[in-house]
Amino acid sequence: MAEAASAPAASAFNGALHRHAGGPLVVTRDGDILMVGLDRQAKRNAINDSTIEALDECFSTIPDDVRAVVIHGIGPNFSAGLDLSEISERDVTDGVFHSRAWHRCFEKIEFGRVPVVAVLKGAVIGGGLELACAAHIRVAEPSAFYALPEGQRGIFVGGGGSVRLPRLIGVARMSDMMLTGRSYSAAEGVGLGFSQYLVGEGEGFAHALDLARRICGNAPLTNFAVIQALPRIADSDPRVGYLMESLISAVAQGDREAKTRVRAFLEKRAAKVTRPD
Amino acid sequence: MAEAASAPAASAFNGALHRHAGGPLVVTRDGDILMVGLDRQAKRNAINDSTIEALDECFSTIPDDVRAVVIHGIGPNFSAGLDLSEISERDVTDGVFHSRAWHRCFEKIEFGRVPVVAVLKGAVIGGGLELACAAHIRVAEPSAFYALPEGQRGIFVGGGGSVRLPRLIGVARMSDMMLTGRSYSAAEGVGLGFSQYLVGEGEGFAHALDLARRICGNAPLTNFAVIQALPRIADSDPRVGYLMESLISAVAQGDREAKTRVRAFLEKRAAKVTRPD
Amino acid sequence: MAEAASAPAASAFNGALHRHAGGPLVVTRDGDILMVGLDRQAKRNAINDSTIEALDECFSTIPDDVRAVVIHGIGPNFSAGLDLSEISERDVTDGVFHSRAWHRCFEKIEFGRVPVVAVLKGAVIGGGLELACAAHIRVAEPSAFYALPEGQRGIFVGGGGSVRLPRLIGVARMSDMMLTGRSYSAAEGVGLGFSQYLVGEGEGFAHALDLARRICGNAPLTNFAVIQALPRIADSDPRVGYLMESLISAVAQGDREAKTRVRAFLEKRAAKVTRPD
Amino acid sequence: MAEAASAPAASAFNGALHRHAGGPLVVTRDGDILMVGLDRQAKRNAINDSTIEALDECFSTIPDDVRAVVIHGIGPNFSAGLDLSEISERDVTDGVFHSRAWHRCFEKIEFGRVPVVAVLKGAVIGGGLELACAAHIRVAEPSAFYALPEGQRGIFVGGGGSVRLPRLIGVARMSDMMLTGRSYSAAEGVGLGFSQYLVGEGEGFAHALDLARRICGNAPLTNFAVIQALPRIADSDPRVGYLMESLISAVAQGDREAKTRVRAFLEKRAAKVTRPD
Amino acid sequence: MAEAASAPAASAFNGALHRHAGGPLVVTRDGDILMVGLDRQAKRNAINDSTIEALDECFSTIPDDVRAVVIHGIGPNFSAGLDLSEISERDVTDGVFHSRAWHRCFEKIEFGRVPVVAVLKGAVIGGGLELACAAHIRVAEPSAFYALPEGQRGIFVGGGGSVRLPRLIGVARMSDMMLTGRSYSAAEGVGLGFSQYLVGEGEGFAHALDLARRICGNAPLTNFAVIQALPRIADSDPRVGYLMESLISAVAQGDREAKTRVRAFLEKRAAKVTRPD
Amino acid sequence: MAEAASAPAASAFNGALHRHAGGPLVVTRDGDILMVGLDRQAKRNAINDSTIEALDECFSTIPDDVRAVVIHGIGPNFSAGLDLSEISERDVTDGVFHSRAWHRCFEKIEFGRVPVVAVLKGAVIGGGLELACAAHIRVAEPSAFYALPEGQRGIFVGGGGSVRLPRLIGVARMSDMMLTGRSYSAAEGVGLGFSQYLVGEGEGFAHALDLARRICGNAPLTNFAVIQALPRIADSDPRVGYLMESLISAVAQGDREAKTRVRAFLEKRAAKVTRPD
Repeated sequence: MAEAASAPAASAFNGALHRHAGGPLVVTRDGDILMVGLDRQAKRNAINDSTIEALDECFSTIPDDVRAVVIHGIGPNFSAGLDLSEISERDVTDGVFHSRAWHRCFEKIEFGRVPVVAVLKGAVIGGGLELACAAHIRVAEPSAFYALPEGQRGIFVGGGGSVRLPRLIGVARMSDMMLTGRSYSAAEGVGLGFSQYLVGEGEGFAHALDLARRICGNAPLTNFAVIQALPRIADSDPRVGYLMESLISAVAQGDREAKTRVRAFLEKRAAKVTRPD
Repeated sequence: MAEAASAPAASAFNGALHRHAGGPLVVTRDGDILMVGLDRQAKRNAINDSTIEALDECFSTIPDDVRAVVIHGIGPNFSAGLDLSEISERDVTDGVFHSRAWHRCFEKIEFGRVPVVAVLKGAVIGGGLELACAAHIRVAEPSAFYALPEGQRGIFVGGGGSVRLPRLIGVARMSDMMLTGRSYSAAEGVGLGFSQYLVGEGEGFAHALDLARRICGNAPLTNFAVIQALPRIADSDPRVGYLMESLISAVAQGDREAKTRVRAFLEKRAAKVTRPD
Repeated sequence: MAEAASAPAASAFNGALHRHAGGPLVVTRDGDILMVGLDRQAKRNAINDSTIEALDECFSTIPDDVRAVVIHGIGPNFSAGLDLSEISERDVTDGVFHSRAWHRCFEKIEFGRVPVVAVLKGAVIGGGLELACAAHIRVAEPSAFYALPEGQRGIFVGGGGSVRLPRLIGVARMSDMMLTGRSYSAAEGVGLGFSQYLVGEGEGFAHALDLARRICGNAPLTNFAVIQALPRIADSDPRVGYLMESLISAVAQGDREAKTRVRAFLEKRAAKVTRPD
Repeated sequence: MAEAASAPAASAFNGALHRHAGGPLVVTRDGDILMVGLDRQAKRNAINDSTIEALDECFSTIPDDVRAVVIHGIGPNFSAGLDLSEISERDVTDGVFHSRAWHRCFEKIEFGRVPVVAVLKGAVIGGGLELACAAHIRVAEPSAFYALPEGQRGIFVGGGGSVRLPRLIGVARMSDMMLTGRSYSAAEGVGLGFSQYLVGEGEGFAHALDLARRICGNAPLTNFAVIQALPRIADSDPRVGYLMESLISAVAQGDREAKTRVRAFLEKRAAKVTRPD
Repeated sequence: MAEAASAPAASAFNGALHRHAGGPLVVTRDGDILMVGLDRQAKRNAINDSTIEALDECFSTIPDDVRAVVIHGIGPNFSAGLDLSEISERDVTDGVFHSRAWHRCFEKIEFGRVPVVAVLKGAVIGGGLELACAAHIRVAEPSAFYALPEGQRGIFVGGGGSVRLPRLIGVARMSDMMLTGRSYSAAEGVGLGFSQYLVGEGEGFAHALDLARRICGNAPLTNFAVIQALPRIADSDPRVGYLMESLISAVAQGDREAKTRVRAFLEKRAAKVTRPD
Repeated sequence: MAEAASAPAASAFNGALHRHAGGPLVVTRDGDILMVGLDRQAKRNAINDSTIEALDECFSTIPDDVRAVVIHGIGPNFSAGLDLSEISERDVTDGVFHSRAWHRCFEKIEFGRVPVVAVLKGAVIGGGLELACAAHIRVAEPSAFYALPEGQRGIFVGGGGSVRLPRLIGVARMSDMMLTGRSYSAAEGVGLGFSQYLVGEGEGFAHALDLARRICGNAPLTNFAVIQALPRIADSDPRVGYLMESLISAVAQGDREAKTRVRAFLEKRAAKVTRPD
């Protein structure tokens, strides 16, 4: 299979393929980690209504023993975005509810129980870019490129992109992308703050899995606090943010897990911070 | 003339010079595009009250068939900022109303009917930097440099710079510029998020015109949404932002223009997204 | 002493060592500038309760004739963060009040009377990173590295890091640091927007002092406005921000100091803005 | 049955008792209207975990043909609040997730698909008061009284009361209730802005049903806009709110339903506004 | 004429009828005060496009020597709201721009140069209620009643009502009005916080004029601060609000006008505060 | 003494007069309660710089065993506001810092360690009204009246009134007070939401003391949460507010004090909620 290098081959995992094998998603397990693959390769993984439904169901029913998710595209692209063939028949009122369904789904990704790492390669366009924004960590391969051709199509982002992308790259850059149709490369994307990692071609999935493993090693309460509290603190006025930080940090410190880990650290049984390479 | 290469020579445009030929602005047309040139070269295009009045009138009366604006400086500089010779006589109350007049004018640029592209070269200082911030896209030539010498003069930005510049480069960098008088180069400015483009010396105007032509090719409703809705969504709390996005995207999709363009795309008659070079 | 090159040797300053000589801080004077050195080298300048108390007292009692502060670490590190040996005994309620004490202290640094420049080298980790965030300008030496190992320890930042760090580098990068334990280098930190300066190893302190001297040369009212008004304007909705800017800029312009300085500028007696090198 | 006067007797409705007949909720139908009755009379309808689960399931699965909900207490009380017998065993971390479960449930009430009318009588205390706050309209009988005894118990509201109640009666009055244990009467509650209606004893349910019928007569898109958009607009800065209002009002006006209704009005076939009695 | 008692008879004023005599507005002067009367009595002063245009022009060109405005309805009603006969032909995109035109117009009333007092009687419905919300002071006669029949018509407020009315009476009461079609009486409106005054039938205009005269007697800078700064401070987070208040109060105190008035007060030449009757 | 009926006579308290006996404040103790009396009767308790200094010192040094504060005016008035005789000499820059000193002082009242109850009678004007706003509970006697004569004097509130008063009575009513000089009576003040209690003349102090005693009986952590968290939650967007509420309620529930109190309640050893009279 062409995507063998960058996508999960069944044999590479302890978990078995257990859902949506023929549908828009391929969902597999590797220990604590759930791997969610977009699989509509003939359409460059364009997102249609059944993709949204499958993602929504998947992120609504994450097994209790899963501690991190990796989301990726099967084949050479992450996702070419909203499948435009579906929008032609909708009236305005339908359009509102359609966009709300994307929002509900992507909020389950961003504010779910566990951190999500996205692997980006090839087309990361429109709705595909919006989906990538809902993950907590983005790992890009050099082939990845980012664009918002909504202006050329006469439409506007509807999957939360106008909320999430400006928090990553700023309003001005996103405006430029939409006004001029500009696309950015994977290398540019790191500097802009879009992806946090740029790795070699074909290495994205393995790198994401490695990050996911580190995430699984954290105290669950810290992971909860990073996902739930950090973006809300950052969005709040400082007075509110400081009080929230005091509360969540005290709750985390007081948890049994933290007591154990801090003791391990003080007794030199825990890994120290290492300098970046 | 020294600026011939980078400023609009009359012969290069279909439109005719039609306003303020001898004043602080030179305003010309090229099809759908209005070109607004600051022209107080003896003062390095410093902005005095009559510049503000002329800009305000210009952006208040953009012809209905204009779909994009390019703003630029005639001569080697974009603008050296507020003309300080005017401020010495003002009392505090006057100062408040003076700053409010700048705000009104620059808001007409930022929240007007059409996108605005600024061409930056030479001095982009103080009030000139604030004016540049009000545009939607900034194209820099290598000669451009950015500074806020307000601290040395004992004053403070009054043209919206404290609102707009932190959204581009962050509060910390702007604080440093004001506290230490530091200036940034055109090349640094791209990395900081201040300008979205860096082009060759003398190529800024042509590049801006090219971007403006692409903007003119968009559906007007998308351009409206990018200018009016995107910055407001980005400033809002996410719950509000998502609902606004659902509404504006549904309105855009439902518009006749979008229906036509999406059909063209589905029938392979529209340009596809291209990878960045 | 090993830190001689980068820390203040007594003979290098006009001021005398006047406080906390044997404690967690070494505080010295150089004219208008107060220099605050963290000095718990055996613990890599980890911050314990007495450090917080000493910092709080120091920033609560800045002499009237001090116009800028430089904060730095004695020895090879800025600070390795919260001294974890102190947290094991605290219950949750205590934890809340403990974090509030850090917040009160660091707010005195950020919203005090004078600008603060931090010199970063070696470990800038956890609570040390949080302390660095409270300064207005950060100067990094190449040895500096940044990490938030809270996830590995099962805890969460409690010194304002969740409020201040996302405003510098964005929520997504901070999330990655906390979820994966990633550390960033000094060179990366400039691009991220964390430090505004990267200088040669051992040159940080002198560079910070030079910046502090420039700050001392500004009108005090501009410095006040940059520290107090700018971050609040940037956090506000634009309508509020513009009005605040109009008011503070009119007050600054109306001050005697500004009148004197603007006149000096108009009479060519003041330094002009210079291009960046 | 003691509650016969004020609660739905099976024979009074077209719909049949179809869920939770023996559990904490009694759910019945009357045409377009769903009626949800709290039924733990021995505990004055105190809310325990199974009540929250049942409410969550009920509001997650509102049938498509339901257009309004009435929520009420079976017996003499609406609800005496959180069942304190459940909290003694929880640790702090559990407590956070417990409160989050209440929030999720009550958000389904407030931001569900249809408007919710609450009937208040007898004890409306603590968590019961919080539940009442999640409805859109509150109808009180004279026996209703409101209190937040959390201060005396050493706890704090955890069902969204600190978010919703200040929006109804202001922070100062809520602070007084929590600090002093003060209770307010049904008559006072109308003046404070807590309930919108005060009716005769035993008349609350019928009045709520009457209001629900009027709600069912509205265009669904207006009801959606009132529930989803209005509170978000009200919470936003005005620039954002105005744009959202423009969008939602244009979408509503453009909907077929509005076209029909406005035509009926213009042709004098629709009811006119009547003066209040 | 039936409205003679409560509307301005030409002979009652020093100023002359000078604009729009036959149009939707009757605009007159009385010294410093401009009186703007809605005059489409056959339609109960329903607001059509030409009313909005006339109001926009009127509030865009308030003479420099006018210091307060009274807005009122000629005839027995203030205004029955949006003239629905105009909306049937509009598509969604038109609808957005139509609502934006109302917003622009009403913002000129609320954030204009001078305070505006509205006189309310008879129908104050839908768009008429929205117009009343844009004034700073509302004086009601007993005949006034308030309703938002948008739900029954299938539409939504589009003249800023969703922004301004919740700030006066709360979201919950406004939701009830829209969901159930409820109307409130003039007497109820005072308790709700909608109007600040309730006077005898036919006495509203004279009372408004009296209030306007008191407003004309204030220092213009205080009036500016109340109109421009107060609502923005109230909408801001407190840290921002306090700083803005410090600035505007210092600017006001420093103004010559304040110096004169405070001196008059200290020398017992100014009126003291009187107890309420 | 004339104020004997309504002010603390020394013999009425267990505590002794211990500070500022001859100054602007009379501070006494009654068990857990600190009583702070304004005492510049010749000036109707107008607030001058030394009053602010004394209040600041008093609220900065509240003894650890104090659990509530009552603030009141000695003599027939609470406070007639800012002593205008002090402002004539200040320039604008001084004015900013002067207002900031009031803000710092009043923030110590509002966000101090313990709840504050204010007793209002006679003049509660300007700065006196602002001081009253900083308390958590306001008890009014019938003689109390409220006014903001700033408009007549040409000044603006500078003690936080523009932040706090709109949160109590709304922007529109405050605007009316400032624009027209209107004063409100004690009875009106309860309906407006300004004071939470209206008691008989001369009974305010005893009532406040009774409320303070109830406050002292609460768990300290609940009191902390009401003072620190509640206003911040109410000011936040709901997503942030809910998370903060979950955290603070879990921390409170987990505290030993709550465990003890909840057990007492479950074992019927604690007072139940009583209906309002």
